[in-house]
Amino acid sequence: MTDQFSKKGEAWSARFSEPVSDLVKRYTASVFFDNRLAQVDIQGSLAHAEMLAHQGIISAADYAEIQRGMAQIKGEIDAGKFEWLLDLEDVHLNIEKRLTELVGDAGKRLHTGRSRNDQVATDIRLYMRGAVDDIIGLLRELRLALLDLAEQHADTILPGFTHMQVAQPITFGHHVLAYVEMFGRDAERMLDARKRINRLPLGAAALAGTTFPIDRLRVAKTLGFDDVCRNSLDAVSDRDFAIEFCAAAALVMTHISRMSEELVIWMSPRVGFIDIADRFCTGSSIMPQKKNPDVPELARGKTGRVNGHLVSLLTLMKGQPLAYNKDNQEDKEPLFDTVDTLTDTLRIFADMARGITVKPGAMRAAALQGYATATDLADYLVKKGLPFRDAHEAVAHAVRTCVDRGCDLADLSLDELRAFSSLVGEDVFEVLTLEGSVAARDHIGGTAPNQVRAAIAHIRNELKN
Amino acid sequence: MTDQFSKKGEAWSARFSEPVSDLVKRYTASVFFDNRLAQVDIQGSLAHAEMLAHQGIISAADYAEIQRGMAQIKGEIDAGKFEWLLDLEDVHLNIEKRLTELVGDAGKRLHTGRSRNDQVATDIRLYMRGAVDDIIGLLRELRLALLDLAEQHADTILPGFTHMQVAQPITFGHHVLAYVEMFGRDAERMLDARKRINRLPLGAAALAGTTFPIDRLRVAKTLGFDDVCRNSLDAVSDRDFAIEFCAAAALVMTHISRMSEELVIWMSPRVGFIDIADRFCTGSSIMPQKKNPDVPELARGKTGRVNGHLVSLLTLMKGQPLAYNKDNQEDKEPLFDTVDTLTDTLRIFADMARGITVKPGAMRAAALQGYATATDLADYLVKKGLPFRDAHEAVAHAVRTCVDRGCDLADLSLDELRAFSSLVGEDVFEVLTLEGSVAARDHIGGTAPNQVRAAIAHIRNELKN
Amino acid sequence: MTDQFSKKGEAWSARFSEPVSDLVKRYTASVFFDNRLAQVDIQGSLAHAEMLAHQGIISAADYAEIQRGMAQIKGEIDAGKFEWLLDLEDVHLNIEKRLTELVGDAGKRLHTGRSRNDQVATDIRLYMRGAVDDIIGLLRELRLALLDLAEQHADTILPGFTHMQVAQPITFGHHVLAYVEMFGRDAERMLDARKRINRLPLGAAALAGTTFPIDRLRVAKTLGFDDVCRNSLDAVSDRDFAIEFCAAAALVMTHISRMSEELVIWMSPRVGFIDIADRFCTGSSIMPQKKNPDVPELARGKTGRVNGHLVSLLTLMKGQPLAYNKDNQEDKEPLFDTVDTLTDTLRIFADMARGITVKPGAMRAAALQGYATATDLADYLVKKGLPFRDAHEAVAHAVRTCVDRGCDLADLSLDELRAFSSLVGEDVFEVLTLEGSVAARDHIGGTAPNQVRAAIAHIRNELKN
Amino acid sequence: MTDQFSKKGEAWSARFSEPVSDLVKRYTASVFFDNRLAQVDIQGSLAHAEMLAHQGIISAADYAEIQRGMAQIKGEIDAGKFEWLLDLEDVHLNIEKRLTELVGDAGKRLHTGRSRNDQVATDIRLYMRGAVDDIIGLLRELRLALLDLAEQHADTILPGFTHMQVAQPITFGHHVLAYVEMFGRDAERMLDARKRINRLPLGAAALAGTTFPIDRLRVAKTLGFDDVCRNSLDAVSDRDFAIEFCAAAALVMTHISRMSEELVIWMSPRVGFIDIADRFCTGSSIMPQKKNPDVPELARGKTGRVNGHLVSLLTLMKGQPLAYNKDNQEDKEPLFDTVDTLTDTLRIFADMARGITVKPGAMRAAALQGYATATDLADYLVKKGLPFRDAHEAVAHAVRTCVDRGCDLADLSLDELRAFSSLVGEDVFEVLTLEGSVAARDHIGGTAPNQVRAAIAHIRNELKN
Repeated sequence: MTDQFSKKGEAWSARFSEPVSDLVKRYTASVFFDNRLAQVDIQGSLAHAEMLAHQGIISAADYAEIQRGMAQIKGEIDAGKFEWLLDLEDVHLNIEKRLTELVGDAGKRLHTGRSRNDQVATDIRLYMRGAVDDIIGLLRELRLALLDLAEQHADTILPGFTHMQVAQPITFGHHVLAYVEMFGRDAERMLDARKRINRLPLGAAALAGTTFPIDRLRVAKTLGFDDVCRNSLDAVSDRDFAIEFCAAAALVMTHISRMSEELVIWMSPRVGFIDIADRFCTGSSIMPQKKNPDVPELARGKTGRVNGHLVSLLTLMKGQPLAYNKDNQEDKEPLFDTVDTLTDTLRIFADMARGITVKPGAMRAAALQGYATATDLADYLVKKGLPFRDAHEAVAHAVRTCVDRGCDLADLSLDELRAFSSLVGEDVFEVLTLEGSVAARDHIGGTAPNQVRAAIAHIRNELKN
Repeated sequence: MTDQFSKKGEAWSARFSEPVSDLVKRYTASVFFDNRLAQVDIQGSLAHAEMLAHQGIISAADYAEIQRGMAQIKGEIDAGKFEWLLDLEDVHLNIEKRLTELVGDAGKRLHTGRSRNDQVATDIRLYMRGAVDDIIGLLRELRLALLDLAEQHADTILPGFTHMQVAQPITFGHHVLAYVEMFGRDAERMLDARKRINRLPLGAAALAGTTFPIDRLRVAKTLGFDDVCRNSLDAVSDRDFAIEFCAAAALVMTHISRMSEELVIWMSPRVGFIDIADRFCTGSSIMPQKKNPDVPELARGKTGRVNGHLVSLLTLMKGQPLAYNKDNQEDKEPLFDTVDTLTDTLRIFADMARGITVKPGAMRAAALQGYATATDLADYLVKKGLPFRDAHEAVAHAVRTCVDRGCDLADLSLDELRAFSSLVGEDVFEVLTLEGSVAARDHIGGTAPNQVRAAIAHIRNELKN
Repeated sequence: MTDQFSKKGEAWSARFSEPVSDLVKRYTASVFFDNRLAQVDIQGSLAHAEMLAHQGIISAADYAEIQRGMAQIKGEIDAGKFEWLLDLEDVHLNIEKRLTELVGDAGKRLHTGRSRNDQVATDIRLYMRGAVDDIIGLLRELRLALLDLAEQHADTILPGFTHMQVAQPITFGHHVLAYVEMFGRDAERMLDARKRINRLPLGAAALAGTTFPIDRLRVAKTLGFDDVCRNSLDAVSDRDFAIEFCAAAALVMTHISRMSEELVIWMSPRVGFIDIADRFCTGSSIMPQKKNPDVPELARGKTGRVNGHLVSLLTLMKGQPLAYNKDNQEDKEPLFDTVDTLTDTLRIFADMARGITVKPGAMRAAALQGYATATDLADYLVKKGLPFRDAHEAVAHAVRTCVDRGCDLADLSLDELRAFSSLVGEDVFEVLTLEGSVAARDHIGGTAPNQVRAAIAHIRNELKN
Repeated sequence: MTDQFSKKGEAWSARFSEPVSDLVKRYTASVFFDNRLAQVDIQGSLAHAEMLAHQGIISAADYAEIQRGMAQIKGEIDAGKFEWLLDLEDVHLNIEKRLTELVGDAGKRLHTGRSRNDQVATDIRLYMRGAVDDIIGLLRELRLALLDLAEQHADTILPGFTHMQVAQPITFGHHVLAYVEMFGRDAERMLDARKRINRLPLGAAALAGTTFPIDRLRVAKTLGFDDVCRNSLDAVSDRDFAIEFCAAAALVMTHISRMSEELVIWMSPRVGFIDIADRFCTGSSIMPQKKNPDVPELARGKTGRVNGHLVSLLTLMKGQPLAYNKDNQEDKEPLFDTVDTLTDTLRIFADMARGITVKPGAMRAAALQGYATATDLADYLVKKGLPFRDAHEAVAHAVRTCVDRGCDLADLSLDELRAFSSLVGEDVFEVLTLEGSVAARDHIGGTAPNQVRAAIAHIRNELKN
């Protein structure tokens, strides 16, 4: 007797009177992008077969045959010798068909008690779990590289900006730690998403479960899932985990885009705070002098890509009736590309962090421009008894005078400063220095060098575990 | 001496030579949408003042005055008598200015050791924490309402659909439980987001921390935060929590949109599976017979709104250099509207779930159309020894015959069925019944009525805690 | 003397002290997706060289050599023998390097007076112009197929739905024409976008123009551009046309998604208005009876893909300072995938439109359910003198009586109808028929069969031109 | 007899057995945001009534009454005395109900031959047409302001940047003209969108047209529409024009965001190319010295808002079956907010353009840093006979030498330059000056001051018409 796939070129199954048209075949096939699921598909099939055998649904001999066939297929794929056929639509049918060629009826028994709907959902979750684990590892690598950079510059002073205007002096180590925090939250979110990824849909079959006496918890244990999906309709139609992952990924890229923006600005000649090693830069086809920070620029651009994928998936799932619809095949490409983008970008950023040369002189020069210590002067007056709002106003008058004269606050004489508030004393000039300013912000989260070092030690300790 | 805000109509501060233009004032003011933060702003200011007093940064007398003033302001706001002024830009300056009117210098001392940057970040987090808690409560209410509906229909059979084609018989209770799962994951995600919301930025001041000897952990404890933000630049520039919340909200609305789609289809006369109570429907201005399921349709439409807000916030944060930029003022309206949309929608859906009338007759009639038990027949043949792929093909032949004749599988005689496989015996007709089909899917997550009841009991138990 | 690209493996140019790292090379290279621009790149380069020669910037001999070299490269690419090298980054450098191998110094002179910035902008515009022309042609094909379907069913009555509730009887031809209108507007938008695509950036060089006496209008004429970009900075940084195209594409897909949704619902067994030919459908791996409308479902899902690409590009361009930044390399993949998605989808839909079987019986049965002619009854009363709002209320009473009784309006006796309004006469039953109802909507845009035929003729005439 | 709306508090119409719940009422009502359509609603109703009277569908007396009533309502609305009632859902029913109070049966006849579906579609299109015309006018104002700025600085030299690295010298006037081009394309797109907005849906009624002998072309003419919508189903379900407008608006905001990014960077103290007048800036609550460019920052942030609205609308329309669904009510808020955002932002930018102070000294200093004339040197060598690629490499060597020495190209002696190419002659120093460099780019679109002046004249001439 012919089986369901033996004459796929003629018709989908005996229920159909004509084959799928070639145009439709190409339009609907996924095999050329979903074959990256081959390894997890085999892994999932083997766990399913083991359970079928254990439950007596298939024989031990059939299971052994399936194991033998799958081992060969895995070898063929690893060796690049497996022939992926468009006619067989996707990775799942390609592998199952090959299995049947290799082991006959045992292969035709593999699909007992499951459907492509729960099979594909299982494969994606296995794949995503691995991807999330990789990404968490890469976030750790990036944070470690940034911690080293921060440590080297725990005392290096640059102006902190708000609104791209000079605000207050900060240390470069402190600035870098802001990104260490961001990527730390990203890792937290990935771990949270992992909880919801790591639940087993297999056993949901098409949408309603199966009539065979399966043991879903056994399969979950074999495959390392934390739990099984508790409702079969939800199991095959749920793509929350893909969207949640892409949302977490969009935040990773948002942080990358912010860091990239700063790197690009810092390397611009008028700012000149840093240089990025030549190996991360390219030149121009026309302008011989150019050295362009390609990597951060491209990474900034890739934010759009990941945001777009998130929107794709949200649009995809909007208003879909239960349970499974073909629309869902569109989940894979955005998901895979998001994984690739994050993996490549995080790896290259961890590398690039070690290729950044800091220019303390330029940073210091910038910090001395723009009245960075004006808040310190206001705080000084408050400590002398003036209410903060009055102190703010007094210093604003002083700054305006300096702007008109083109000088800094520290350039005013004591008498001149006293004209703005009689509370000013000789000790005022200490608070107007950059070092005095950063050292004074000495509390958890503040920019004082010893706080920066404490924060680095704290995070290093967390990352040990 | 004049303070910073006493002549705001003339200039921002003494540093400015002309006032902000009226057009700019309207363009940049946030007071007419951020005044919903008034209560948390006061709460945050009081905690800050308590700490300032405890640390000896302000006097006990000043703190008492601030408490007195804030109590009066709270009363004025509650009574709708507080006058919000455009000239004072936002909720924070409005309240602080009023405080200074009421309590003089003590009011001017409140802003010691903080900035609007960390103040607004604290306010939003306090507000969001409350909103998330409300939403988690509403998700629970909705799940409870759906559990009741599922329990009433644990035995009611309807066709399960994939691709909007009849797939296999399922129970309506089982179908409803799929949504209970989705909204359960939504609650998990909200709880995960809450962890990252509930960290205190106050103490970061403008971006670098403050020179005053503040105690951030004390303020965190007073306000019920789990931790403090560990880096001051990150503290004032981080809007991850807003994006993470909107992403979780977009998933809630995605689930709402799927449920809405099904409700609308189910209430369409050709399907007729349910009716929705009149109080959730409206009529037509021209067609007197119309009764339209407005609520699910509008809710489906509101998915767009929340997806849009998520994109707004991601676009907003893309490529922003540290630390604070005025762009961030744009975070509030999308966030507030997302909170309102979720709150209203979840409340109305919990209510509407109790206004759904199920029509078991229509459901059953539909389940009898479309060869819903074909898989059962294939499984039957497998249990008789046929490999699954061959069984699938045999049944496909049988279905095609039925399609040509316009009859159901159960309408074929035993002999006719045997023509497709000699393994068919007299017991075949049992597996072709709807009741037999659903009862046979009897494993965790399967559609069998006893599994549905077990799932309901399981979730009810979880929701007790 | 070595030229700029001869030692690319060692360093970008003599200005660099180390080569780009392998990871960076892969991260930043575009050659494996931008090589689809090869033909337009050659076309653009030839037009540029022709102008250089005409202006005396290069010699006639050099131009002849460039022509010869490019002819050979074109041949190599067409034959699949061109070797694309990652080290050479992109399609442009790969071709230029090969040209120099083939024709020596003449090849090194090709880049005189241009930069990759204006070269790539020119290439994309040439490519997009061709893509838009293809898409306009495919929209025409789809409209012609839909016009045929509409014409066959200009008299076939089905219920028109609002809110998925039966509203008023319409003809199927009229319904199909709604999509013909949508795709007509899509073609208009593509034509409008074409105007802004078809302007020549070449001559902008890197960003400022060139010191050579180029003739931009000559190149524009050679390449069929309508005009030249009027500002060189804008010319190299503008990606408006890509976004505008994607926005127009998102509308095409929105229309496709709406049509798909209807096809899927119409083919669902409870509705059963149509059948789609087997060659556009697939089956199930587990359920032998299934025939699933894969093509419309997948197309509906692909809406997400195109919406996502639009968001990618908008995110990409947000906040980019002038003139060119590496971010812009990210414009290509979303753009190319949007072109492919539209091209494939429109082609398959034009084909599928001819594979739709309409089931007039099911349509008619549905139209007889749901009081589709209630508005006709109200209009009837208005024509007898009742104000419309009173007529609406009278008919609403009649409908409610029918709902309670489970009968149709036409099932009420004359006396019973008169109970709702004494204006009802014997002629009332004519307006309650489906045919009477559709025929009465006899004005431009109305559903009357003769209006449908007139509309078809009108559009056919437009499409002739 | 009671009419349809007289007892709305009790039930939607006589077909309903219970009133809409209060929660539902608030959830579904649009009156508090759609009342901005009041003027166009009245305008549309009057045109409809005029046609009804002309066609003899209502009497001349009724028409006169409707005119009288509407005049009074318009007066009440203008005076702020019109009472908007939640119970009456939307602007349309509120006005119609009031009309009936004022003029009795004539009011109840107004809705003859139309439905809310085509009424609301007509109102939005009338509103959008006005909004688009306003926006086109504001784009013109902004371009005129920028042209003035460009003219003042047609000779002011600053470095042109690519990748935020110094590329080639350009004039500030040329840079500003890039934005004039962008906003010019925006106006083109708005005009194109206007064509598709300005088509009349009225006459489509609920979805199928009406049984009354209406004259749609007459109404179109009265209301100034270019054409009528040619298919009634499409007429009531089409929201393309809203999406197309938002896409065009997203591009406007993308341009605004790019200009804002540059303004913010240019005003940053390390760059210092410009100052923005105090009236467009604000200070800090904590840092007395701060003057922040709030307006461009906030505008940059508002890009997210408009991108989000575009996504909202695309999500909204995805997969909606024909004809009208309640989802569509969600089109209004994003659309209105987009109109407001554009209107406010363009107005304030036109104003702000006149408040920009250019600092030519800082610009010139920056242009002298970064080897801006390296390309000129390469072009010089090409003109002496060296192939471009060899010239590029020679100059790259020279630049590297300068980088190592910390000097500029013009600081090298003739002998030193000759070391890189023997083709260098005494005339080389002319091409290395900033003035020489910009003057040499003297072709359409180039940065030469005379080309800038020509471009300004060209655009001024276009804007005259």
